[in-house]
Amino acid sequence: MSDFSEEERAAVYRAIAARRDVRAGFVPDEISDDVLRRVLGAAHRAPSVGLSQPWRFVVVRDVATRRAVYDAFERANATAAAVYAGETRERYAALRLQGILDAPVSLCVLCDDDPQQGRGLGRQTVPETARYSTVCAIQNLWLAARTEGLGVGWVSIIDPAELRRILAIPDRLAIVAYLCIGYVSAFAGEPDLERVGWEKGLPLDAVLFRGRYEER
Amino acid sequence: MSDFSEEERAAVYRAIAARRDVRAGFVPDEISDDVLRRVLGAAHRAPSVGLSQPWRFVVVRDVATRRAVYDAFERANATAAAVYAGETRERYAALRLQGILDAPVSLCVLCDDDPQQGRGLGRQTVPETARYSTVCAIQNLWLAARTEGLGVGWVSIIDPAELRRILAIPDRLAIVAYLCIGYVSAFAGEPDLERVGWEKGLPLDAVLFRGRYEER
Repeated sequence: MSDFSEEERAAVYRAIAARRDVRAGFVPDEISDDVLRRVLGAAHRAPSVGLSQPWRFVVVRDVATRRAVYDAFERANATAAAVYAGETRERYAALRLQGILDAPVSLCVLCDDDPQQGRGLGRQTVPETARYSTVCAIQNLWLAARTEGLGVGWVSIIDPAELRRILAIPDRLAIVAYLCIGYVSAFAGEPDLERVGWEKGLPLDAVLFRGRYEER
Repeated sequence: MSDFSEEERAAVYRAIAARRDVRAGFVPDEISDDVLRRVLGAAHRAPSVGLSQPWRFVVVRDVATRRAVYDAFERANATAAAVYAGETRERYAALRLQGILDAPVSLCVLCDDDPQQGRGLGRQTVPETARYSTVCAIQNLWLAARTEGLGVGWVSIIDPAELRRILAIPDRLAIVAYLCIGYVSAFAGEPDLERVGWEKGLPLDAVLFRGRYEER
């Protein structure tokens, strides 16, 4: 029924299951341009509304630039921590939330929310589709990176206005993600947040509905 | 360097490259609950901000429901077609944009934009992260489906208010995607929109920047 062999299919499911949001355990080994290009190529093969390919990728290897981003993270994280109290606050403080300086490559992913390419196809009823296409590209990259032995961590605790200034991003492009990418000593068997007890995953049936939605 | 073999890595890249947004060529073969559960399980293994798992999946097999959605597509498509003129309009009219009645399964993907699960982690600076997590789940499903021989088509030309009514979706959940899923006679070698000349893909270097963004 499928043109994928059992082994090929299993490999894809394994990449999906073994992918982690990595914040700790990065090793300093450089990522070659060839490998980086392969994972970016995977991102660039994502679906996009009207074939608009609205994503833009800024690769940052430079340490001074990453340090400026790290400082922005520290400021946003102090603000974020302040909303928690008591034991939750202690747990929050103990979470490892970024690998900006440890991972040798940062990737800032941008989106042209109103792309000329694609001639507007599919964007009249759902204007967010350009943004969604860009996120599909990120997930492609994440899975390809996993097969290369590269960990990827999505850092969302940074004020986008600071990233805009540091990376010279014009207002017409949305900042979708800041990713830290690097080889890792090992991939964890389960999500970090589950391991440290921040949150527990739901069973599939908790999010699955048949025929129509119904409150449970 | 990686715990994935050459063959496994190649399989993942092949799934990424061979995935298509399918609108034509669906065959009526039913999708078993086992297979559907595998691809939904792949979606459910997506990354999510704070491990919030904000996605909800509504599986629709019922023909009457799919017909109601198809009618909603027809209305939205007539409106969408009206913004084009001349040759572009003719091209638009010739595009095949959905497989709602041909594919035996529709999947409506919803998102809780303000999930309790995850305790708000990572959502203070970037509130859209819940939505992004849900799109990562869709891309996981898309790739897993490809290895099962299942085509997936994302239909964005439907008024979300109509979907909300047909599928009884409460206002607090966002409608992210309506997907048509089914076995196909064959997967095209290139994106449909490229083949029919609607749009041409960009080279990777056109979307790639080093160090910081710069206008070109």
